[in-house]
Amino acid sequence: MLKSAYLNEKPEKEELKARLKEQQDILFAIQQKIKEKKLPVAVLVEGWGTAGKGTLIGRVINNIDPRFYKTATFGAPTDLEKRMPFLWRYFSALPEAGKFCFYNTGWMNEVVKGRIDGSMSDALYEQRIASIRRFERQLLDNGYLLLKFFMHISEDEQKKRIDKLKGDVDTKWRISDSDIWQNKHYKECEKIYEQYMEDTDTSSAPWYIIDAKSEKWSELQVLERLNEGIDIALQNHSLAVPLIQNVFPLKKMPKLQDIPLEGKELTEEEYREKLDKLQGRLEELHNRLYRKRVPLIIAYEGWDAAGKGGNIKRVTEALDPRGYEVHPIASPEPHEKARHYLWRFWTRLPKNGHVAIFDRTWYGRVMVERIEGFCSENDWKRAYNEINEFEKELDDWGAVIIKFWVQIDKDTQLERFTERQNTPEKQWKITEEDWRHQVCTVAYPGIGR
Amino acid sequence: MLKSAYLNEKPEKEELKARLKEQQDILFAIQQKIKEKKLPVAVLVEGWGTAGKGTLIGRVINNIDPRFYKTATFGAPTDLEKRMPFLWRYFSALPEAGKFCFYNTGWMNEVVKGRIDGSMSDALYEQRIASIRRFERQLLDNGYLLLKFFMHISEDEQKKRIDKLKGDVDTKWRISDSDIWQNKHYKECEKIYEQYMEDTDTSSAPWYIIDAKSEKWSELQVLERLNEGIDIALQNHSLAVPLIQNVFPLKKMPKLQDIPLEGKELTEEEYREKLDKLQGRLEELHNRLYRKRVPLIIAYEGWDAAGKGGNIKRVTEALDPRGYEVHPIASPEPHEKARHYLWRFWTRLPKNGHVAIFDRTWYGRVMVERIEGFCSENDWKRAYNEINEFEKELDDWGAVIIKFWVQIDKDTQLERFTERQNTPEKQWKITEEDWRHQVCTVAYPGIGR
Repeated sequence: MLKSAYLNEKPEKEELKARLKEQQDILFAIQQKIKEKKLPVAVLVEGWGTAGKGTLIGRVINNIDPRFYKTATFGAPTDLEKRMPFLWRYFSALPEAGKFCFYNTGWMNEVVKGRIDGSMSDALYEQRIASIRRFERQLLDNGYLLLKFFMHISEDEQKKRIDKLKGDVDTKWRISDSDIWQNKHYKECEKIYEQYMEDTDTSSAPWYIIDAKSEKWSELQVLERLNEGIDIALQNHSLAVPLIQNVFPLKKMPKLQDIPLEGKELTEEEYREKLDKLQGRLEELHNRLYRKRVPLIIAYEGWDAAGKGGNIKRVTEALDPRGYEVHPIASPEPHEKARHYLWRFWTRLPKNGHVAIFDRTWYGRVMVERIEGFCSENDWKRAYNEINEFEKELDDWGAVIIKFWVQIDKDTQLERFTERQNTPEKQWKITEEDWRHQVCTVAYPGIGR
Repeated sequence: MLKSAYLNEKPEKEELKARLKEQQDILFAIQQKIKEKKLPVAVLVEGWGTAGKGTLIGRVINNIDPRFYKTATFGAPTDLEKRMPFLWRYFSALPEAGKFCFYNTGWMNEVVKGRIDGSMSDALYEQRIASIRRFERQLLDNGYLLLKFFMHISEDEQKKRIDKLKGDVDTKWRISDSDIWQNKHYKECEKIYEQYMEDTDTSSAPWYIIDAKSEKWSELQVLERLNEGIDIALQNHSLAVPLIQNVFPLKKMPKLQDIPLEGKELTEEEYREKLDKLQGRLEELHNRLYRKRVPLIIAYEGWDAAGKGGNIKRVTEALDPRGYEVHPIASPEPHEKARHYLWRFWTRLPKNGHVAIFDRTWYGRVMVERIEGFCSENDWKRAYNEINEFEKELDDWGAVIIKFWVQIDKDTQLERFTERQNTPEKQWKITEEDWRHQVCTVAYPGIGR
């Protein structure tokens, strides 16, 4: 299959040269448009050992202004990476709007390695494939261009290259044991590569198999696809993305207005007693969490002045300070705004055994961003599913996820606002926006779908 | 896998009743919107034998005005259907805009049957999966809502139902041999079902596995998904669909203006001689085509007055009249316009061993429909890929496809127009539109991409 999938016949030398020049010029010219239209471009380069992935990336970026690209090389996961969700390091490396990121191998390589060395079960493989499909679709839906190249050489060609590199003291180091192993088990590896590509070959992010026999020819194939892809992505740029059905099972949630808030108050004494007991229990659990390497994510949402801060404080009092982080989520910074809206949450995840507490969360997409018009209607509608997919990723990883909505009624909120306004040391806590939202009681209709 | 994929827990009787009533009312109310917005809805109902597919469809359509739906039941392909491309009967049954079609089993069943009885090779299975993915994506991209339900019952439940139906003279006929066989080989079949659903479970057309233990509960699950799907499709209604990269290998075509038209004329004598010889050869080939059951599709495009009609006549002179059909393609009729733009070509395909000649073709989408603004820019841009996918389907089927562009220059066209205008018996051949296109020399820039 890998062979027959070639898309192009290698042209004669002169034609190759001419077409290469043409494509290089196109790429050079189009980078301005990429910047203008704020298109983020992720290029995944996978392939056989010694196929020339690094060289290819080197040639391609030669045509791009160095301020507009970065490269990210992924080897076996580091100790830290092993403690994070599978997609974490790839999501974290996403390019900003208007820039390129070239992945020198990535999520394909990680999965395929696990298949080849037998460490990845069928069930885990399927989970990974599902994750990858969601990940790639989310990128596209959120305006990324994703191009996936597989650099292909034959068994003989690989053997020839290995022998040649081995024969020279200066190049010997470039051959890894795994390259040699791969060549000896070429057929097995080929089957696994093929299966992976079949499983992740979607219409909007297809695989391009590159005949990697020569450097120039590789570059031409990649440039032609890259330029075509950029052209199409620029055409798609202002289009809204169709919504899809949310396939996640959802629990019916009560409406906020139906939640009884009266008659639930504790006496100070009762409160102290319960708090002590529960904090003790939490401390103990935090220890076990750490030993068992379970990641814990606590998400706080709720009305302004509902008391999220105080609540978080009571939780953290019980935790070992070396094992948790609190992330107050305000408006995104420019570098955050230039990426997938979930990027700033992906990059703030705890490592396993640790706790991350979010004071406001990714649900901002369907609340404040919706209300304030920071994203389009299509964006926030689509986000319900995307958020479920994000949480599914965390759940697959083994995280415990707890989401709190802290509820107060309108009168209580007004009372607290007024108190804040009138107490000099609390005035920083209250803003124009808070007052605006006070009026807007339909602010949070969509929670839990 | 089938079991764990349940999306919902069966509610208690009272809640089930209430939710069912609610969903029935929603469907009843929403059908007006479907009509208004001209949304076509295709519902595929697959599942185990005796799972109650027919009953389910019966219950669902009870909530819809009979003018707005049809049902299509598919058994083993008939002799005619066997002579047509795989997707032909499913494509032909597509609902019009504003209406429902319920497929009582469909393309899944056909593929899965081939896997179960061992008649379908791995390679053919993969080809079918690829066809189905393209088919389903094209439906969605062209504004269809597609919902796919799998009615699931356990091995024991199926056995119980079979025994019960068999025990009664009045219901005995409802049990087929294949139901009994299926129950005996439940595990094998389950694996094949699962694999198929995994292979075709896409974000925009996911599989819904319906717990088919009870009729009302089945109906509720289907109605909830159906209503949700309709709601989302109505929201998507006015959105343009992002373009995707064309993954088909394409040959470079010369520009029309670069085609030399001079110095190619034959003398009358040469012409007669060559024509005779070639017509004789064609006659012979038509015979072999018929015996080998190869379908032949001849597509004519070209400038008005280029002489397509005469050309076609010279071809058909050589053909056995029982073995070909000529399809003049004019503006689509209302019932054609209400469907996928390729529908009128799908339904005009020849059976194998026969010839279909199209006088103007599906390329109208990227020519006249583009020029006259009959479809949006997004529609015709997307069509390049869709047309390639259509032709790939025909190629997979084994068809020979020949596409002619009949070229004349502007002066020759003007000459012929004038002649037509001045010859009473030819005046029908010339219209306002022809004159308009005469001016428009950029009319056909996109051919061959």
